[in-house]
Amino acid sequence: MKTALHILKVGGHLVNDAAALQEVLAAFAGLDGAKLLVHGGGRHATALAKQLGISPKMVNGRRITDAAMLEVAVMSYAGLSNKKIVAQLQKQGVNAVGLTGADGNCIEAVKRPVTDIDYGFAGDITQINTEVFAALTSQDFVPVLCAITHDKNGQLLNTNADTIAAQIAMAMQVEYDVTLFYCFEHAGVLKDIHKPEDVIAELSKETTETYIAEGVIHQGMVPKLHNGFDALQNGVKKVIISNVAALSNINAPKTTLI
Amino acid sequence: MKTALHILKVGGHLVNDAAALQEVLAAFAGLDGAKLLVHGGGRHATALAKQLGISPKMVNGRRITDAAMLEVAVMSYAGLSNKKIVAQLQKQGVNAVGLTGADGNCIEAVKRPVTDIDYGFAGDITQINTEVFAALTSQDFVPVLCAITHDKNGQLLNTNADTIAAQIAMAMQVEYDVTLFYCFEHAGVLKDIHKPEDVIAELSKETTETYIAEGVIHQGMVPKLHNGFDALQNGVKKVIISNVAALSNINAPKTTLI
Repeated sequence: MKTALHILKVGGHLVNDAAALQEVLAAFAGLDGAKLLVHGGGRHATALAKQLGISPKMVNGRRITDAAMLEVAVMSYAGLSNKKIVAQLQKQGVNAVGLTGADGNCIEAVKRPVTDIDYGFAGDITQINTEVFAALTSQDFVPVLCAITHDKNGQLLNTNADTIAAQIAMAMQVEYDVTLFYCFEHAGVLKDIHKPEDVIAELSKETTETYIAEGVIHQGMVPKLHNGFDALQNGVKKVIISNVAALSNINAPKTTLI
Repeated sequence: MKTALHILKVGGHLVNDAAALQEVLAAFAGLDGAKLLVHGGGRHATALAKQLGISPKMVNGRRITDAAMLEVAVMSYAGLSNKKIVAQLQKQGVNAVGLTGADGNCIEAVKRPVTDIDYGFAGDITQINTEVFAALTSQDFVPVLCAITHDKNGQLLNTNADTIAAQIAMAMQVEYDVTLFYCFEHAGVLKDIHKPEDVIAELSKETTETYIAEGVIHQGMVPKLHNGFDALQNGVKKVIISNVAALSNINAPKTTLI
């Protein structure tokens, strides 16, 4: 039987809310056994860019990571957010080690190929190398990943944190029974954003596609769910989408992918 | 016989000069065996603070790290500089892992006690915990430290990189034959800053104190030398002060502490 591993993805909204973040980190600290945290970026990077006079580039509603914005992302995600989270976890007795995909070459990516849009320094993951996770988790260190990867050729890249969490989960399931938990501000996937108590308890891929087609499940949630089903179909044992309550209370509402 | 370990401290001036940094990292990549890099911060943090409208606080000519400046230091040192160095080393085939003192709780510090001056979030090192270095170096990963520590109570702190390098060297000499190399822009300690070729080949503690008293050795170099002698008197095998040339050429001019 494999050892259990919890992979917690913490959304950007929670990362930028000091009180909410503290609550999530306390719940994470309470999880037994091997664990790994992945955190998003969020508003701090946008605010920092604005302060520096860098205006976010958008093409067809998609965000473009130009060179200036990449530096902001690295400073915000790998610098401030990651190290604040590590220091908070250390306070809680969790021996956290903050990483980007460049550290230990754990996440290799390629700069997204230019088609009709040039996304700039956005990285698409090509390979997860689990050696540094293994070296750390075997000694009870807890890896804390931010949303920065690299191309192994000296270039840092900006990569979606949901995808990072799913890809690490898939790579780690070879050695571990992995639970992937997407933690955000809602109790789960909702049929109606105005009814936050009305959580869909179980979602299959088929139901999800129907909901997406009907417009019940909206834009932001779609890639998260696709990442989650990707993980589930590639050996990850359990994929949950919920808020901090479900992290410490097994009976709290949540969405489980089936 | 103990295994050899090279600890290279790279000064802030070199970190902020892309061409010079590349040269240093290439030489570091060429070093055989276990190694560890410590880098300073430097001008980027000052420029970033200025861009953000944060003016450096000075009291009696000493820099004060207030809360805003600490965030800038974390973003600059642990974010941009550290991750650029890690990505560059990965390109050169060095399996680098970037760390602050909070990561793996490797450097515990206390906020410097307030006497006549309140230095703000400046950290004085109280303890080096070598476990994360051991876990990484035993698997051929190369730790890359920046000048940020923590107090194990959730607070990040700004700490002198020369001191970090010396303290890590002292902690690692229990298991390794440590060479501590302070790499900066000059070929070594100079008797006359206007004669950069006139390097003092060997410096004892006594000679150093005489030179300091005579004003031959100046302010910036004084704490570096004190750190170096501290290391030498606490089991570190060799302490060298020089530039990149001495990293790859054994015959290049350098200052060796004796």
